[in-house]
Amino acid sequence: MLVDNRTGIEVIDRRECLALLAAEDFGRIGIIEGGSPLVLPVNYALDGEAIILRSGEGSKLAAARRTSACFEIDRHDSERHEGWSVVARGRLEEVSPYEGPALERLAALPHPWADGDRSHVLRLVIASVQGRRVRPTS
Amino acid sequence: MLVDNRTGIEVIDRRECLALLAAEDFGRIGIIEGGSPLVLPVNYALDGEAIILRSGEGSKLAAARRTSACFEIDRHDSERHEGWSVVARGRLEEVSPYEGPALERLAALPHPWADGDRSHVLRLVIASVQGRRVRPTS
Repeated sequence: MLVDNRTGIEVIDRRECLALLAAEDFGRIGIIEGGSPLVLPVNYALDGEAIILRSGEGSKLAAARRTSACFEIDRHDSERHEGWSVVARGRLEEVSPYEGPALERLAALPHPWADGDRSHVLRLVIASVQGRRVRPTS
Repeated sequence: MLVDNRTGIEVIDRRECLALLAAEDFGRIGIIEGGSPLVLPVNYALDGEAIILRSGEGSKLAAARRTSACFEIDRHDSERHEGWSVVARGRLEEVSPYEGPALERLAALPHPWADGDRSHVLRLVIASVQGRRVRPTS
């Protein structure tokens, strides 16, 4: 087990981070909007080492294409006092028209977290990823 | 029920947003680090209309004090195809030394999501808050 020397928190390696990202379909994207950070819940699908999202025309997310972004997923169990998180950073690009398997997975999700018409397909190419796992200190 | 005309998503009013923030103890904070967005999972406690967090000296979160920040909580149930999110935006300030009830609630949490010594107490005074609830489209 790898542990961060400074924080004492267990580190999840890149391979497991990508496996966790592949297994989930809901996360949060951090962008800069009006000079300030904004965190938005979104559905997504992983395509290789890129996060694929959909967004509506005129949305805050669509406006953030061609900028840096951050993507986060986590599980937090208050009763078992444990959890993990994966934080990926990279550049957000538009990839419409997009023809990839991730779009089918996105289309199959019943949760309309993305706003509006969702006609834009965005891709966050993962430049760096960090994972952490926490357990109770006691 | 209030519905966002543009997105069709159900809106949670400010009062319920604050009640949800008061009921939870784990969320994600969005900051700007090195010019790029960064989303970090954190424990927190609500104090009036401010989010109280702890952070270690030298951490990325401590470095973001006196800047704008965003805080997000959500619940997402893949099986029941529903969920909600609350997104609060405001300014992050240091409030050490801090003497408030939120610190006791934070101290009682067993999850060390905040890194390092956690000697700094930060407060995000909520300037705006938005809540959304999603249900399956079918």
